[in-house]
Amino acid sequence: MHAIQATREKRIRVSEEEKRLIDQVILPPESTRTSLAQALGVSPAWITKTITPLIERNLITEIGPAAGSGGRRAKILGINPAVGFLIGVDFGATSLDVALSGPDINLAGQKSLPINIDAGPEICLKAFHELTDALLQEHDLCREDIRGIGMGVPGPVDFAKGRVISPPIMPGWDDFPLPEAIMEQFPNSFVLVDNDVNLMALGALRQGRAHDAENTLFIKVGSGIGGGIVCGGRVYRGASGCAGDIGHIIVQRNGPLCRCGNRGCVEALAGGMAIAQQAMSLAKSGESPLLAEALQQKGGALSAVDVGAAAAQGDVRALQLIDTSGKYVGEMLTHLVSFYNPDVILIGGGVSKIGHRFLNAIRQVVLKSASPLATRDLRIEYSSLGDQAGIMGALSLAQQNLFYVG
Amino acid sequence: MHAIQATREKRIRVSEEEKRLIDQVILPPESTRTSLAQALGVSPAWITKTITPLIERNLITEIGPAAGSGGRRAKILGINPAVGFLIGVDFGATSLDVALSGPDINLAGQKSLPINIDAGPEICLKAFHELTDALLQEHDLCREDIRGIGMGVPGPVDFAKGRVISPPIMPGWDDFPLPEAIMEQFPNSFVLVDNDVNLMALGALRQGRAHDAENTLFIKVGSGIGGGIVCGGRVYRGASGCAGDIGHIIVQRNGPLCRCGNRGCVEALAGGMAIAQQAMSLAKSGESPLLAEALQQKGGALSAVDVGAAAAQGDVRALQLIDTSGKYVGEMLTHLVSFYNPDVILIGGGVSKIGHRFLNAIRQVVLKSASPLATRDLRIEYSSLGDQAGIMGALSLAQQNLFYVG
Repeated sequence: MHAIQATREKRIRVSEEEKRLIDQVILPPESTRTSLAQALGVSPAWITKTITPLIERNLITEIGPAAGSGGRRAKILGINPAVGFLIGVDFGATSLDVALSGPDINLAGQKSLPINIDAGPEICLKAFHELTDALLQEHDLCREDIRGIGMGVPGPVDFAKGRVISPPIMPGWDDFPLPEAIMEQFPNSFVLVDNDVNLMALGALRQGRAHDAENTLFIKVGSGIGGGIVCGGRVYRGASGCAGDIGHIIVQRNGPLCRCGNRGCVEALAGGMAIAQQAMSLAKSGESPLLAEALQQKGGALSAVDVGAAAAQGDVRALQLIDTSGKYVGEMLTHLVSFYNPDVILIGGGVSKIGHRFLNAIRQVVLKSASPLATRDLRIEYSSLGDQAGIMGALSLAQQNLFYVG
Repeated sequence: MHAIQATREKRIRVSEEEKRLIDQVILPPESTRTSLAQALGVSPAWITKTITPLIERNLITEIGPAAGSGGRRAKILGINPAVGFLIGVDFGATSLDVALSGPDINLAGQKSLPINIDAGPEICLKAFHELTDALLQEHDLCREDIRGIGMGVPGPVDFAKGRVISPPIMPGWDDFPLPEAIMEQFPNSFVLVDNDVNLMALGALRQGRAHDAENTLFIKVGSGIGGGIVCGGRVYRGASGCAGDIGHIIVQRNGPLCRCGNRGCVEALAGGMAIAQQAMSLAKSGESPLLAEALQQKGGALSAVDVGAAAAQGDVRALQLIDTSGKYVGEMLTHLVSFYNPDVILIGGGVSKIGHRFLNAIRQVVLKSASPLATRDLRIEYSSLGDQAGIMGALSLAQQNLFYVG
């Protein structure tokens, strides 16, 4: 059975009209009865008729007066906090973030731990429980208070089943029953698992205005490279839930060997791990004095951010490394721009902290190589959500699925 | 002003509920009141309430009894033929197809002429008028009887404005006011222009069952190579209407020069024109005896289909040419499969007549290079609509836009 179906009993059943209203209530900015009627294109009477039973069931509530609402005070509406709490989980290759919120997904608390995703699910889930228990304790909550959990993982996911499938960097996770394992510990909660970059796209979509994000690509350049697709204002997951798997698009035939077995994948040339490796060899050979210095100070290893720092001080080799990496990401994006013709490309992930020169290198290649029509109105930007895109997307996923139509 | 807006006065205004019902009525298979209620998830009373004014306005009609509808005869519903006639136009690089139909888009007649698209819009529109006038005369119709025209062209189109934009193979068409020029001659008709491959995707979508075509790619391998995208059951055009421009995805860096100015584009290696050129040089050098023979018989030139015929007789060089061409198309598709994770890829266009070995070569590369999850349920097939996909899509476009919500 599909995880989404199996978790229905943990979710709240509403009618189609009620779901339509709730989906609008949870979107920013704040909603009043009047703004809802406008946004949904319905009459005030429809709103009253639909919202009254939801208020009576303690699902929707008036959370306060709207600012500047004149003589007759309009009320801001929201999901009733009594519905319960949500947890958002963002598994990275080397870090775990867990956040707690009410059903409005305003953060109540957030905690992080370094992990190794390739240690396998048992060890990683222990870290998850450690962080979650600490968050619950701080807020005087118990596991029974949690009503929904959204979780992102850095690998391909069969979304309907909640299964990681053949993940290149997650040995031991293949087909592991993640939702079932977690639901055992959280008796009142459903658990939905998605690819981390899909959730980053969802987070960015929720934050941006809908009309700005009709057809957006979210590109994560972290240790690896992945993409999240927004199509017509919704996250697009593809036929098997693995759309956006772009790290292994080949940009240099006979290039360096990638962990996937092919050569010249963009991830093997311009991912965070590839940039760090090239930085290490520039440091060790002494070609880059500033990177050599940074390596000496840090001991063990360099990261893409060190390259950004060296470049900012004018280190020629670091500048070249950034330009080359940006060029490869740009070449991969040129394919996607020609194919998908997005209105916005948002770039996030750790490597986006390398500085604006990387972004400029990407933009230059795309503008040079893609068709004039496809780039005419295209914006390529760093995501303003920064590190928080994944965790906000995980909470959004839980929030969106609190209610189902049945 | 946008062409779509400018043509509103020529279209038929209906309410949102009425449009929902009409959009269902025009889909195959045949609709009855009962099947409509089921498909839309509404009550029979809703259907009666919504359909009665449409019947009174002579927009919907009962076109006959449903087969096997038992005691009480159910009636098949359709768009009233009195609404008027539609024209579908498919401009190719070297051919023009024009079709005439009623609002049910069942073909009443179709005519073709060889053209050179690079002769420019004036000369090509003359051919269009010649074919249309012949069709109208055969059916005893005049230009005033036409209520909608859908048109496909082999280049990037700003769909909202109805303008061809910077087309690589259509000199003289850039920004030409195509809808306005045609509407002058058809006073009661709107004119919508789209990229030819988008219309092929629309044609395939209309023919296939909806659940089979949620996320489909339609790939045209003709003289050039283009793609049409179906996302969530609808044709996806992208931010500027030029999504699917995949012919210039680079599959061999430093490969042969493409007409776009870059090197190694898939179109320059595996498009119909590239295959024909390679066939010519195999014939002239005598490396392929069968192609040399075919060239002698035909005089002037060879096409991809000749390569298919020589391969079918065991010509080694022809077999290799097909395998190599299929490999390049497969490499380009691998990128799209990783990114888009479609459920079906339909391949059409002239080169699809080359035989099944080409399809096998494509499939092999995609299965070898794309991720197991992305290819698990993926089907890659020749389009069963063959040559007719473009013209059926053009008629569908006209049909879908006969009615607007206002």
